Amino acid sequence: MKNSASLEDLIEALRCLPGVGPRSAQRMAYHLLQHDHEGARQLANTLDKVLTGIKHCEKCNSFTELLVCNLCSSTKRNADLLCIVEMPADLLMIEQTQSYNGMYFVLMGKLSPLDGIGPKDIHLDRLLKRVQDNTVKEVVLATNFTVEGEVTAHYISELLNSMEIKVSRIARGLPTGGELEHVDSGTLAQAVMERREV
Amino acid sequence: MKNSASLEDLIEALRCLPGVGPRSAQRMAYHLLQHDHEGARQLANTLDKVLTGIKHCEKCNSFTELLVCNLCSSTKRNADLLCIVEMPADLLMIEQTQSYNGMYFVLMGKLSPLDGIGPKDIHLDRLLKRVQDNTVKEVVLATNFTVEGEVTAHYISELLNSMEIKVSRIARGLPTGGELEHVDSGTLAQAVMERREV
Repeated sequence: MKNSASLEDLIEALRCLPGVGPRSAQRMAYHLLQHDHEGARQLANTLDKVLTGIKHCEKCNSFTELLVCNLCSSTKRNADLLCIVEMPADLLMIEQTQSYNGMYFVLMGKLSPLDGIGPKDIHLDRLLKRVQDNTVKEVVLATNFTVEGEVTAHYISELLNSMEIKVSRIARGLPTGGELEHVDSGTLAQAVMERREV
Repeated sequence: MKNSASLEDLIEALRCLPGVGPRSAQRMAYHLLQHDHEGARQLANTLDKVLTGIKHCEKCNSFTELLVCNLCSSTKRNADLLCIVEMPADLLMIEQTQSYNGMYFVLMGKLSPLDGIGPKDIHLDRLLKRVQDNTVKEVVLATNFTVEGEVTAHYISELLNSMEIKVSRIARGLPTGGELEHVDSGTLAQAVMERREV
């Protein structure tokens, strides 16, 4: 005895979501069927709408329904600066800090040779074209401080080396509120090496 | 700066799933858009299909596309026994043990006055009709051993008291492989009280 066929199909379909295994997929399916038909209907419709409507912004490569997203077409942003991030979520994090007013380019990934992800997969051709449009004066590398993120940042900085563009990397060091006693030694070592004059 | 409008809609829609907060909804939305259009399309279609196609079985109240589910219409099951469980997931768990060959009735909930869930909400009227169809000789109460599950089992046993039907409750005690030293005292007390002759 199993669940009914279409219920099994739904459980299977829910497993396309990251972090959802067989048991939580089953719990989700039962929840939707018992308590939230409205939400399930909404989810189905929104998925449909997003899948047909959403594209990548021609300038920053992030998700948008428009040809060029609102941020890229805004006249209030500083077009001299181009911040490079791995994912749209990173872009949102930086926006939340309200400390940056330039433009963005979203790689939608990071270099990862072991996973077969090379320069073409993170749209570096489009990045180069974007950088060469004569507005960008500084590229801010804001990829993660992971091995892949560092490799990606290094690769891009080499790529931009020959052009007359300043390339910078966001700072690494102790987090705000961080205590020397509790920070890992790698971060502390970097913080000492990259010390700034006051 | 926020996500694009339809992406925000999708993130909001994903939150109808149990256990999915704003951050995991965002992660799910990005994942679907970047890596799994196929899965997202499948999910939307299956939700659609399930929402229109699935109903409650006329006999056991579980989910099915049919009027009477496969288990209830099977001739290989023992129609004398009717096992009462809270949720379809509980039914599946019992089926997995392969230790029970009777019929089921799924309450789709449990009595919980504090949440406003009374006898009508767990379909006890339908249960009574099901029990009175002259096939059932024993009702096996397999609700959870939680406060609500116990109250529900007690309420149903009172309800069936006046009829000529045997009512039993699944056993409580130490789990298989359980050690006295590590089991909670409530379970151990019950195991002593409900000891069986060997």
